[in-house]
Amino acid sequence: MTHIDVVALLAVAQYLVFGSMVGQARGKYGVQAPAVTGHEMFERTYRVQMNTLEMLVAFLPALYLAARYWPTVYVAGAGVVYLIGRVLYARAYLTKPDSRGLGFLLSMAPVTALLLAALVGALMGRSGAPA
Amino acid sequence: MTHIDVVALLAVAQYLVFGSMVGQARGKYGVQAPAVTGHEMFERTYRVQMNTLEMLVAFLPALYLAARYWPTVYVAGAGVVYLIGRVLYARAYLTKPDSRGLGFLLSMAPVTALLLAALVGALMGRSGAPA
Amino acid sequence: MTHIDVVALLAVAQYLVFGSMVGQARGKYGVQAPAVTGHEMFERTYRVQMNTLEMLVAFLPALYLAARYWPTVYVAGAGVVYLIGRVLYARAYLTKPDSRGLGFLLSMAPVTALLLAALVGALMGRSGAPA
Repeated sequence: MTHIDVVALLAVAQYLVFGSMVGQARGKYGVQAPAVTGHEMFERTYRVQMNTLEMLVAFLPALYLAARYWPTVYVAGAGVVYLIGRVLYARAYLTKPDSRGLGFLLSMAPVTALLLAALVGALMGRSGAPA
Repeated sequence: MTHIDVVALLAVAQYLVFGSMVGQARGKYGVQAPAVTGHEMFERTYRVQMNTLEMLVAFLPALYLAARYWPTVYVAGAGVVYLIGRVLYARAYLTKPDSRGLGFLLSMAPVTALLLAALVGALMGRSGAPA
Repeated sequence: MTHIDVVALLAVAQYLVFGSMVGQARGKYGVQAPAVTGHEMFERTYRVQMNTLEMLVAFLPALYLAARYWPTVYVAGAGVVYLIGRVLYARAYLTKPDSRGLGFLLSMAPVTALLLAALVGALMGRSGAPA
C-alpha cells in the first residue's frame, strides 16, 4: 500500500502547509491570538485550513478503507484528484471566495466516491484487492 | 474487521451529512463565507458539525485500536451507540441547545470506553481478539 | 506496535482532556452555546483544544505511517516529545498566549519529522521495520 501511503502523506503535508499559512496570516494581518476573526484575508486563510481539516478527517479513513477492498490504482487516483481539488479550493478562496465551488467539488467528490466504494466493499465482505 | 469498517464508514458518512447541512445553512440563513457567525441557526448547525468533527477524531482511532484488542461485537456495539448519540445530539442542538446533554453523553461515553479499553489492551499487550 | 498504540491513545486522551476543559470553561466564563467567543479565557481554552485537534489529525497518520517504515523506538520517542509539547503549549496559552511558541514547536517538530520520515520510507518502498 505504498502508493496509498504516499497520497495520504501528501494530503497531510498539504494540510500542514495550509496551517502554516494561517500562522503567517496572523502576523501579516495583525490578528492576535486567541482571535480567529478581525481581517477578511486572515479569515479566508483560516477557513481554507479548517475546511481542509474537515475534509481530511473524512478523506484519510475513506482512502484506507477503500484501499482495503479495491485496486490501489483507482483509490490512489481518487486521492490525487482530492489533492488537486484542495489546491484549486485554496487558490480560489484566497482570491475570490465565491469561485471556490469547483475546488470544493473536486475534493468532495473523491471523498464521497471513496467512502461509498469502501462501504460497498465492507458490506459485500470483499476480500482485499491486490496492492 | 468488516463490521468495524462499516461502523467507521457510517460515522464518516454521518459527519459528512452534518457538513452538508452547514453548506445549506449558509444559503438559508445568509451567512457569507468566510464568516461562521451571524445567525443563531447557522451557528448551531456549524457547531453540530464541529463537535462531531471533534468527536470523530477521537472515535475512529479509539474504535480501531479497541478492535485490535477486544471482540468485534462489543467494539462495534459501542460504535453503534456513538452513531445514535450523534443523531440525538444534532437533533437536540438544532431544536433546543440546552437539551443536547443526552446526545453528547451517548457519543462521549462510547468514545471514552473504547479509548480506555484500547489503552488497557495495549498496556497489557493482549493479542488481537478474533474478528 | 503496542508502544505506538499507547502513544496514540495517550494523544487522543490528552486531546479529550483539553476538550473537557472547554466544556468546563463554557460554564465558568458564561459563554452560552453555540457561541465560541465572548470571554478571553474561554477563547484561549477553545484554541488549545482546536489547535490540538489540528495537530492530532496530522500526528496520528504520521505516527502510524512512520512506524510502518522505521524502528518503533524512534517513532514512539517522537510521539512522546509531541505529548510533552502539547502540555507546554496548553499551559503557556492559558497563562500567557505570547509564550506558546516553545510548546508549539515541540509538538510541530515531531509531527513534521514523522511525516517526512514516513514519506521517505514510503517513497523508498522500505519494508516495515521490526516492531
